[in-house]
Amino acid sequence: MLTVFGSTAIDTIRTPKKVLKNVLGGAATFAAISASNFVRTGLIAVVGKDFPKEYQKILSDHLDLKGFNIRKGKTFRYDGKFDNTLSTRETLKTELNVLADFEPTVPEEYKKSQFVYLANNDPDQNIKVIKEFDKIKFSMCDTINFWITTKRESVIKMIKAVDAVVINDEEAKLLTKEFNLIKCSKKMMEWGAKYVIIKKGEHGSLMFFDDVIFPSAGFSLEDVVDPTGAGDSFAGAMIGYLASKKSTTLSEIKRAVVYGNVLGSFAVEKYGLDGLIGLKKSDISKRVKLYEKMIRF
Amino acid sequence: MLTVFGSTAIDTIRTPKKVLKNVLGGAATFAAISASNFVRTGLIAVVGKDFPKEYQKILSDHLDLKGFNIRKGKTFRYDGKFDNTLSTRETLKTELNVLADFEPTVPEEYKKSQFVYLANNDPDQNIKVIKEFDKIKFSMCDTINFWITTKRESVIKMIKAVDAVVINDEEAKLLTKEFNLIKCSKKMMEWGAKYVIIKKGEHGSLMFFDDVIFPSAGFSLEDVVDPTGAGDSFAGAMIGYLASKKSTTLSEIKRAVVYGNVLGSFAVEKYGLDGLIGLKKSDISKRVKLYEKMIRF
Repeated sequence: MLTVFGSTAIDTIRTPKKVLKNVLGGAATFAAISASNFVRTGLIAVVGKDFPKEYQKILSDHLDLKGFNIRKGKTFRYDGKFDNTLSTRETLKTELNVLADFEPTVPEEYKKSQFVYLANNDPDQNIKVIKEFDKIKFSMCDTINFWITTKRESVIKMIKAVDAVVINDEEAKLLTKEFNLIKCSKKMMEWGAKYVIIKKGEHGSLMFFDDVIFPSAGFSLEDVVDPTGAGDSFAGAMIGYLASKKSTTLSEIKRAVVYGNVLGSFAVEKYGLDGLIGLKKSDISKRVKLYEKMIRF
Repeated sequence: MLTVFGSTAIDTIRTPKKVLKNVLGGAATFAAISASNFVRTGLIAVVGKDFPKEYQKILSDHLDLKGFNIRKGKTFRYDGKFDNTLSTRETLKTELNVLADFEPTVPEEYKKSQFVYLANNDPDQNIKVIKEFDKIKFSMCDTINFWITTKRESVIKMIKAVDAVVINDEEAKLLTKEFNLIKCSKKMMEWGAKYVIIKKGEHGSLMFFDDVIFPSAGFSLEDVVDPTGAGDSFAGAMIGYLASKKSTTLSEIKRAVVYGNVLGSFAVEKYGLDGLIGLKKSDISKRVKLYEKMIRF
């Protein structure tokens, strides 16, 4: 199975056309639901007593919730606003709430997970959590500006502790202090990552392993309404696909990246989680085929 | 044959590591020399009496110069400075000089060119020049910020007058007043372009024709030293490849875009024109094969 550890949030997302107030969000939520299209996925996360029943229903419809905790206090809340072009997002408010002093434990049943994804969480917490798994075949982490600027050394240690890093281009540059993405990936590989996947939003992604570079174009979309969670959906699809194949050959990792691009494209076409929820296996395989046809020459 | 019309310049290019003073440049120079790797290419351009003999030797080694004019006065001069990341360029000086009142004429022998490329020149001049060709099978133009902001209506007329527009992403957005690149391309197709190719620098390009979208990843490079002329080299390679095949099938146009990516990658690896000069056919075909292998999954 696959275990995803990270944040479940109540988000307010302000897009040019629509404001979504107090919707279900969080990096781990997007990643886990995206992954659940491929494999049984367990979510380790914490919410507060204010977490709506209908949101818990959405999670339990898609995920195994043995590692899901409801604690006294309020759920992690995020409020952000996209600019008119949907290309930059300004953070208006971040309230950690119950997330602040959460001490995650890994349920016995999850400890044998061969695939583990650490969504963009506190790197020290991530390092602690990853040690609780006994039989890891493939682990992957993401990180964000906040941890890079406040806990850079811990982020580097976390990278050492996993097989793969998935990170967006701007964050890769910030973390490694390099401008060129190949140079960024080399630095992360020197720190101990076997695989580095750099996400470039609409421009697709670059996957690095050893001397191999795998650039993949994005799936072109005309109507993007809400980029929230696209990167998390990408990562979730990647590791979900690999977990479903129980394989980490280079060829499967490349295919996993393509599934990442495709699930990211579903995520941004609708608001909040709507692009991921109700997706059918056939929707995904159709779009992967369309993508393969699109890029062929 | 292929005819390229546009600017030949004497450039000063300030990169983070090196300043190139008074080097051979110009959009048409890069495009024509790039194209000359594929097909006999004629250049219609004008320079002043100050144009160095060794630069003319470089041009005559690669190009047919029946349409090349030396006039009283100074050559078009450009001075620009790249930032530390090589991602933005600031224009320090532009002196049109002999270019300002140049009245181009198309040599008799060029009038039967089936392939014509209009580098980013005055759109009114481009519209006049394109009418002088009798047997055009495929024509393509580029444009830049300067013409979009000063002569937008003429740029739109020029687009109507050619088969294909090749343009970078920021300029496509500026011209069409759209944010999404599919929407940008639709607008240019409404204006009359059959093919739209949007260049995205290191992120590759998008080609649009009818309902077809062909996204292609960039050729990943670790050491980029001077992005000058990359877009022009891309366009030159595209139309040079098509002219060499005497074909404009969709499949060949896709391959032409790949050659565009590849020649753009050669251009940025060295300073000024050095990346294009001395290229062997085998260097190009090797890199195209490497690219095909790189993106395969």
